[in-house]
Amino acid sequence: LTLRSLGERKIIDLFVSKLEKKPDLVVPFGDDVSAIDIGGGRLAVLKTDMLVGRTDIPPGMSLRQAAFKAIVMNVSDFAAKGVKPLVALISLGVPSTYTEGDLNDLAAGLSEGARKNGIYIIGGDTNEADDLIIACMVFGICKRNELILRSGARPGDILVVSGLFGKTAAGLKILLNKYQCPVSLRRKLIDAVYTPSARLDFGLNLKKLGATAAIDSSDGLAWSLFELSRASNVGFTVTKLPVATEAISFSEITRADLLELVFYGGEEYEIIATMDPEKFRRSKRKLGDKVIEIGFATCKKELIYLERGLKRKIEAKGWEHFKTNETSD
Amino acid sequence: LTLRSLGERKIIDLFVSKLEKKPDLVVPFGDDVSAIDIGGGRLAVLKTDMLVGRTDIPPGMSLRQAAFKAIVMNVSDFAAKGVKPLVALISLGVPSTYTEGDLNDLAAGLSEGARKNGIYIIGGDTNEADDLIIACMVFGICKRNELILRSGARPGDILVVSGLFGKTAAGLKILLNKYQCPVSLRRKLIDAVYTPSARLDFGLNLKKLGATAAIDSSDGLAWSLFELSRASNVGFTVTKLPVATEAISFSEITRADLLELVFYGGEEYEIIATMDPEKFRRSKRKLGDKVIEIGFATCKKELIYLERGLKRKIEAKGWEHFKTNETSD
Repeated sequence: LTLRSLGERKIIDLFVSKLEKKPDLVVPFGDDVSAIDIGGGRLAVLKTDMLVGRTDIPPGMSLRQAAFKAIVMNVSDFAAKGVKPLVALISLGVPSTYTEGDLNDLAAGLSEGARKNGIYIIGGDTNEADDLIIACMVFGICKRNELILRSGARPGDILVVSGLFGKTAAGLKILLNKYQCPVSLRRKLIDAVYTPSARLDFGLNLKKLGATAAIDSSDGLAWSLFELSRASNVGFTVTKLPVATEAISFSEITRADLLELVFYGGEEYEIIATMDPEKFRRSKRKLGDKVIEIGFATCKKELIYLERGLKRKIEAKGWEHFKTNETSD
Repeated sequence: LTLRSLGERKIIDLFVSKLEKKPDLVVPFGDDVSAIDIGGGRLAVLKTDMLVGRTDIPPGMSLRQAAFKAIVMNVSDFAAKGVKPLVALISLGVPSTYTEGDLNDLAAGLSEGARKNGIYIIGGDTNEADDLIIACMVFGICKRNELILRSGARPGDILVVSGLFGKTAAGLKILLNKYQCPVSLRRKLIDAVYTPSARLDFGLNLKKLGATAAIDSSDGLAWSLFELSRASNVGFTVTKLPVATEAISFSEITRADLLELVFYGGEEYEIIATMDPEKFRRSKRKLGDKVIEIGFATCKKELIYLERGLKRKIEAKGWEHFKTNETSD
């Protein structure tokens, strides 16, 4: 575990230990969303995730893109649970130095983010703060048996992802660590950082495809596998590396470690899910090429990448703050 | 209008103008809460309000009290709408210098605030930030016809408040502007600042008492009357000053302006409501002494305080950031 991961978990554990627990909690603390039973077999699903300027906005990202990202961060968690988000509220902290133009950019980004994901922003709150803070609060409704937790994976389930990994990690190496590469490749990689999107369509198909557990990959592929493993009490063997061709090119040109880019990057809003094998085989044509099979769940609680028959241990480490990465590389 | 009020309204207008409006919005932007129809004649009620260390924590307030206040800020808005809050999620921004003890204090304050108001905290998010940020997100359910908006007051309605004003403004003058007064009085006044509470019991009785409109007084009595006036298109005449005896003592000792303390203070979480006169007369015994009649709504859209037969204009100005007040007094 990295210090940050340890730190975050410790903080969460500390808070959870102090709080009076709701007796009939339908989603455990620490899953991607929270929920409450509203009767009639339905759940109100709630999520809040905060974008903090200093740690969540990489160099060169516009305010419009940052606001869009703040929405994506939250919608991605809904997507990973198979739940359609309906409305959002935004709590804003804005530095006093911001101009009307800056506010316009923020508003445009929020508006775009909402429209693209089919949600309406119905309220919020503005404050003066030292740094840009965008706390989104998203609400949706689902049937009680439709919500996909992190905890349902069983040995033998198929491990799938919604997309290929590595572009964002490479883009961040360019932006934070001054890695060099040809202009056209550079543009694709930093675009992956600046314009993330949530896999909502993919997520809303998960249940039909036979998903038993799912998580979004915002803390990196390895860390998300670790969280799925912990919550479901299974291990995972990855047999096929879900790597973007641009990440391969970047790795060849810069000698950046390819596995590092794929497993230990972050800020990638893909979905990682486990599937009931039978149900999945029957229904996967529906999603066509979009669903990528990368391995399977195992009894033994360990994370393995089988690289040409060679077992490599996937470490349970996650994406760290930009600040940390800036100085550690 | 103060600059800050103008600023906040401008910011809100700017954001609202950029957002795609939900077609069947049940609560207009700018009311104390937001809501969405969930069928069966019910509304999901949502609120988010952010506590920012620099502007919302007065000198000497502990982290435990600040966290408690963050919950109160949100619950107070539910109370003013007559809606019972059920669960909350917390997005935290915490400076990296905070110790485990600090985190324990925050957790204790959140836990206390939740328990005192009968809500459960069911999720959240932690981040590193430059300043303490506590963004609460609160959820509740009510029947569609039970939610009390700001816009329902009619001329002739009775104006009531849930408590007396002036203690918090006096307490803030002690804490921010070094006003002096005897120790026992000082303690009561700064306690009003450090340990605010939301008038939830009062709020949940509003509908039964005949409330036609309501708002919480966190931006000050005058500003809240102005907002009610604007939303309902009525004026108000205050015939009885709802002033706390401690505020009178403070004013006598320090020569601080009493009307200033009562009307233009802030950070007081009382409820201000208008009542259907007939319904109110019939049912007010239920609340006993707790409901304080202070005037009535008028056709003419102006805010008047009748002081011994003398008409005084109540200005539409609100509570300003601590920072502003520190230098302006």
